[in-house]
Amino acid sequence: MPHRAPGAPGQSGSSFLTGKPIRYYRPNGSPDIRRLVDEGFQAFNAGRLSEACQIFSEKMLAPDRDTTIGLTLAGALTPAGLGGCVIELMDRGLVDFIISTGANLYHDLHYALNFTLRRGSPFVDDVQLYEEGIIRIYDVLFPATVLLETDAYLRDFLVRSGMNEPTSTAEFHYRLGRDLLDRQPGCEEHSVVARAALAGVPIYTSSPGDSSIGMNIAYHELVNSSRFMIDPNKDVNEICAIVLAGTRNGCVILGGGSPKNFYLQAQPTLWEVYGIPKGGNDYFIQITTDQVVWGGLSGATPSEAVSWGKVIPGVLPDTVIAYSDSTIAFPLFCEYVIGSPNGRRPRKELVHRRAELVARLSREARAAREKKLEVKT
Amino acid sequence: MPHRAPGAPGQSGSSFLTGKPIRYYRPNGSPDIRRLVDEGFQAFNAGRLSEACQIFSEKMLAPDRDTTIGLTLAGALTPAGLGGCVIELMDRGLVDFIISTGANLYHDLHYALNFTLRRGSPFVDDVQLYEEGIIRIYDVLFPATVLLETDAYLRDFLVRSGMNEPTSTAEFHYRLGRDLLDRQPGCEEHSVVARAALAGVPIYTSSPGDSSIGMNIAYHELVNSSRFMIDPNKDVNEICAIVLAGTRNGCVILGGGSPKNFYLQAQPTLWEVYGIPKGGNDYFIQITTDQVVWGGLSGATPSEAVSWGKVIPGVLPDTVIAYSDSTIAFPLFCEYVIGSPNGRRPRKELVHRRAELVARLSREARAAREKKLEVKT
Amino acid sequence: MPHRAPGAPGQSGSSFLTGKPIRYYRPNGSPDIRRLVDEGFQAFNAGRLSEACQIFSEKMLAPDRDTTIGLTLAGALTPAGLGGCVIELMDRGLVDFIISTGANLYHDLHYALNFTLRRGSPFVDDVQLYEEGIIRIYDVLFPATVLLETDAYLRDFLVRSGMNEPTSTAEFHYRLGRDLLDRQPGCEEHSVVARAALAGVPIYTSSPGDSSIGMNIAYHELVNSSRFMIDPNKDVNEICAIVLAGTRNGCVILGGGSPKNFYLQAQPTLWEVYGIPKGGNDYFIQITTDQVVWGGLSGATPSEAVSWGKVIPGVLPDTVIAYSDSTIAFPLFCEYVIGSPNGRRPRKELVHRRAELVARLSREARAAREKKLEVKT
Amino acid sequence: MPHRAPGAPGQSGSSFLTGKPIRYYRPNGSPDIRRLVDEGFQAFNAGRLSEACQIFSEKMLAPDRDTTIGLTLAGALTPAGLGGCVIELMDRGLVDFIISTGANLYHDLHYALNFTLRRGSPFVDDVQLYEEGIIRIYDVLFPATVLLETDAYLRDFLVRSGMNEPTSTAEFHYRLGRDLLDRQPGCEEHSVVARAALAGVPIYTSSPGDSSIGMNIAYHELVNSSRFMIDPNKDVNEICAIVLAGTRNGCVILGGGSPKNFYLQAQPTLWEVYGIPKGGNDYFIQITTDQVVWGGLSGATPSEAVSWGKVIPGVLPDTVIAYSDSTIAFPLFCEYVIGSPNGRRPRKELVHRRAELVARLSREARAAREKKLEVKT
Repeated sequence: MPHRAPGAPGQSGSSFLTGKPIRYYRPNGSPDIRRLVDEGFQAFNAGRLSEACQIFSEKMLAPDRDTTIGLTLAGALTPAGLGGCVIELMDRGLVDFIISTGANLYHDLHYALNFTLRRGSPFVDDVQLYEEGIIRIYDVLFPATVLLETDAYLRDFLVRSGMNEPTSTAEFHYRLGRDLLDRQPGCEEHSVVARAALAGVPIYTSSPGDSSIGMNIAYHELVNSSRFMIDPNKDVNEICAIVLAGTRNGCVILGGGSPKNFYLQAQPTLWEVYGIPKGGNDYFIQITTDQVVWGGLSGATPSEAVSWGKVIPGVLPDTVIAYSDSTIAFPLFCEYVIGSPNGRRPRKELVHRRAELVARLSREARAAREKKLEVKT
Repeated sequence: MPHRAPGAPGQSGSSFLTGKPIRYYRPNGSPDIRRLVDEGFQAFNAGRLSEACQIFSEKMLAPDRDTTIGLTLAGALTPAGLGGCVIELMDRGLVDFIISTGANLYHDLHYALNFTLRRGSPFVDDVQLYEEGIIRIYDVLFPATVLLETDAYLRDFLVRSGMNEPTSTAEFHYRLGRDLLDRQPGCEEHSVVARAALAGVPIYTSSPGDSSIGMNIAYHELVNSSRFMIDPNKDVNEICAIVLAGTRNGCVILGGGSPKNFYLQAQPTLWEVYGIPKGGNDYFIQITTDQVVWGGLSGATPSEAVSWGKVIPGVLPDTVIAYSDSTIAFPLFCEYVIGSPNGRRPRKELVHRRAELVARLSREARAAREKKLEVKT
Repeated sequence: MPHRAPGAPGQSGSSFLTGKPIRYYRPNGSPDIRRLVDEGFQAFNAGRLSEACQIFSEKMLAPDRDTTIGLTLAGALTPAGLGGCVIELMDRGLVDFIISTGANLYHDLHYALNFTLRRGSPFVDDVQLYEEGIIRIYDVLFPATVLLETDAYLRDFLVRSGMNEPTSTAEFHYRLGRDLLDRQPGCEEHSVVARAALAGVPIYTSSPGDSSIGMNIAYHELVNSSRFMIDPNKDVNEICAIVLAGTRNGCVILGGGSPKNFYLQAQPTLWEVYGIPKGGNDYFIQITTDQVVWGGLSGATPSEAVSWGKVIPGVLPDTVIAYSDSTIAFPLFCEYVIGSPNGRRPRKELVHRRAELVARLSREARAAREKKLEVKT
Repeated sequence: MPHRAPGAPGQSGSSFLTGKPIRYYRPNGSPDIRRLVDEGFQAFNAGRLSEACQIFSEKMLAPDRDTTIGLTLAGALTPAGLGGCVIELMDRGLVDFIISTGANLYHDLHYALNFTLRRGSPFVDDVQLYEEGIIRIYDVLFPATVLLETDAYLRDFLVRSGMNEPTSTAEFHYRLGRDLLDRQPGCEEHSVVARAALAGVPIYTSSPGDSSIGMNIAYHELVNSSRFMIDPNKDVNEICAIVLAGTRNGCVILGGGSPKNFYLQAQPTLWEVYGIPKGGNDYFIQITTDQVVWGGLSGATPSEAVSWGKVIPGVLPDTVIAYSDSTIAFPLFCEYVIGSPNGRRPRKELVHRRAELVARLSREARAAREKKLEVKT
């Protein structure tokens, strides 16, 4: 048995695949939910979630604050159907760039390509799933062929794109999104990657090799001798440049993990590495179930981030962590925010401004180095 | 205040820095601890930890099993002084390759370079820390100058190394380790990166831009116009090649996060992307505080991994998760393992075999593709 | 300082007490929230919460099932304003009896007596709170005088009630509720204890000494030489009798803790101690953040309960745990349930049927003992 | 199937019962473990556990501090074999009184009566366990007959003890322990209840009806028409009296739950209810996996307790929470403490001083009331 892969052919009619298809739920600003959040969510994590909704709606989105807002995604959000929330936020200009695990983007492609993930149970027999070629993400179930066909699409895209040099993930995801829009018209309604390309929202991945997308790019290098690769340096510098350009900066962090750190390290990069004075975040919202007491960065508080210069010392009242599964809290958050008076902003379309912003970062970094050398002399 | 970085000069004599220096504790195989684990750790997570100790000592390390063992590191382990455990395992041939967050490797450099991190408290005033230029990692405290000087070392190394092309993180960390050994003789006793270079243990990072190491490489590209970069494709393929070459495969996962997935995706890469039949892991040990019910990969069980072909269906008895802070459980685990009859193995020194193993992967991948094309024709 | 109590007089105008008053939010069956739960909560804990809503609305409340439903309360729910949800469920006949920590009932009295608890922050200086005589429950703040005046009410009630013998907590809480209704007309809108008395819902406490209510009863014995006391035997037997009488049995467990076990032990009491054959629960819903892997009863699964005979082996599909802070999940659950077609049932008014049901238990227990003795002879 | 109890006769030879018997491990003060705790446990929860060991050994046990030390037990500790640690602490005079869940005491009786609990797995089929009459506590397995025979012993004890009136749990457990010592000579080596009787350590239960012990007492009342019952008032007052009499007070809290609150409420009872000025705890150690952010009392911090007068404001440095499964951390803690220079103290034998201490409480309470009435006049 070990020398066989799951997803053997001819196993398509599994009894495991009887749950409802998972759809991208689109929040629409329910007044009832706004009332619940304002009046019913008064204390404990309900209170924190209510605060998060208010900080985002009333402060981060206030036109005069001009906040550049990053959204980070960790945990299996697109498999759970939360892509619709992200699509809605991008379309309304409420997030300006995204840092995601590769897995969330890879699984988003299933929706774009019209494959079906289904509601299931976390209490199923995995050995039997393996025998029947069913893949499980906690309680989300789908045939292994979905992986194989998504991979085939990705490899074809890599070939036909002609990309052949080190590239940032924002550029890569943008071109992938354009390809989806071309080949699957209308898929921007059910694909974060496609919608991001349309809305000009750059999507970054902090661990570019660490997903089926990365696996297929590695295949492309090994088997097709391509010179296409992700250049993490470009990602670091583009994100720094975006943060540097922000009048104010704020984030919504779902989960934690590597995307959280990748976002938060932008400010230390500026002062610690580039020598450019720029304060930390003005706003910080996290929805997570990780705990500060385990000591990891996923659970680290805005307060700890102050010592690193990641968060401005004076703004702790504008930071909040709501401890909850994102699958529950994030749709509530989006309903609230979308129904708020600031529920739509002009889009910044940063994906088209990356070169310009990196050039500015480069100028300031070189100037800082000159100045430092002068001081030494 | 926002337009200033922490770590302002002249703040060195902080009253926060009065705790004991953190040292790399070296486990030495205490019989008392072995007795406690065998006789006192009987149920609940103590029972799981006891099982993990036994699976590792008696099965994974058994000479006739010839298990290729990966260790993944997430969470702030080197800041907490756990580097000594990792050094001991590498020196004794008990782990064959490592996947770590960049942060653990970056903070390891402080020890190599003789900077001092100190025991502190998580309940300190971060605004005051910021004012005094003290950095906090949960309850570990040190001056911001430690960051700046470690960064300076890294940038100097990048310049003098002359590296100027896409590189795997294993190669990069190996060269960094060699440089440390040259310039800080004896530092292999207190540096994971240095010891790994000496012991031939390749170290990978799944999120290469996501740490101060990545930040300084990005600086090197932007300001020095270097063409040096991390090529994630090389990492993906090297790890696949190592796993493919293993007679048996097993892992010790500390924490979870991106390193966990980067390790576990090797088998799906083989069957799903490369079409090479190779079973999943034979052994799976995780020490974590993350929970399965939040649905993320960090907390996903060996059972869930079966459906993905990451773990061999028949071996679930040889998989175990002990729910504990690694700072408590990992030293106990190492004491037990080192004191066991299999507490030393010949080292595989895989860092020097990467090219050979990738060549084999490449041959098998091309052969698999040929076969598939033939079938279609 | 140690020899002074918090709540010193003259500290009433604290700057800590500026947050909004906490009110008992009343769910009203929002169709928007039902839509979110049905269509947006598809996987992970959102999926579990959606299942819980459906099991409760469609099965437990189905008229032909005639399910006797227990609700258990642990964690600070009334301080967080969740009493309104409990009131609504009782009024609509959707829960038949309650097991609560004493703290939830004690703090409910503040609302009944028109004292004000306020929204605050968990990040305040507790030494300063102590100095100013402010009490903190996580992020809920109120003056220590609220404790002192609630205690005074309780002690006066104990005196004027004339109760002077061992009593069940259901009887005690019923009489307390009647007293509140007499003295604070209309308070059934903002007191769980008062509403329960009106709606005939018995309220039990598994740890009768363990709250300020228990403290004041102990005072009454020590200082007034009263013979009034809680008799835990009566509680155990009343709950067993209620469960025995149920056509079907089901529970909604908030948090876990001692109330969870007190509910679940009813079935083992019946078979293990009384020798009366009666199956376990037919339905089991828990909202908690406690985890199975820590091994405690709070986090124990319905599956583990099967081995104890607490849950019927065949019904695991009708059991669900949603991992979430109750402050978020319970209001959503109540909105859903109340808006469902089964959102109102005839009330069982069990508080008035306790004697009759215990008499039946007594008969069956004696009969079972006779039968057992006969078998031995 | 629902109308049958687990534990059907003739199922004794289960294949589930093949694991090693669980024994009460006795810590003996290992110097290796002391070295690990001092030198290897430097940060994060290892650091906290190290602090807890030092606070207990060097401060709480210091002869000149004369600290009255309470130990609270929640979570399934005796089933996991941790009773040996508690026995050792009692024998050495290192804890003066205990507050435990009933379940820990009930399962302790199995050891006293020579029944065998076995190591197992949490991943077994509970429906099959039910069929075979095996009871599961997470990963601890034993036949249902163990419950039935322990219950029979308890009911016989209740009959032969002749107890027939309201009693404190300390008195009840003391008499139960004496009975065990009489009938099972030598059982003080493997029974907490028996050892406590021998060592004069009073054991309280905050939720007296909530365990199989409480269930059998309830049976005794219902079926035998006994007037024996637990009087929670006596428990509240005895604990208050013990705390009032302490030169200094400190606690070791395992888990949390109702026993934690029952311990901590003693000080509020004194100032809030009895009007007796007495400061809060001088020392506070908790080992738990519960989290502050869920808002419950189990996870509440020493800091929050300050606002209630449960902890002296000035002593926060002498309070610590180590987040860990008690099955791992508590044996380490005991090894450390027992090997310390203060690893043995004269026993206070408080079980014999309860009447005297309650009389003192009564005097002071009446005096405080007189004084208050005078002030009013």
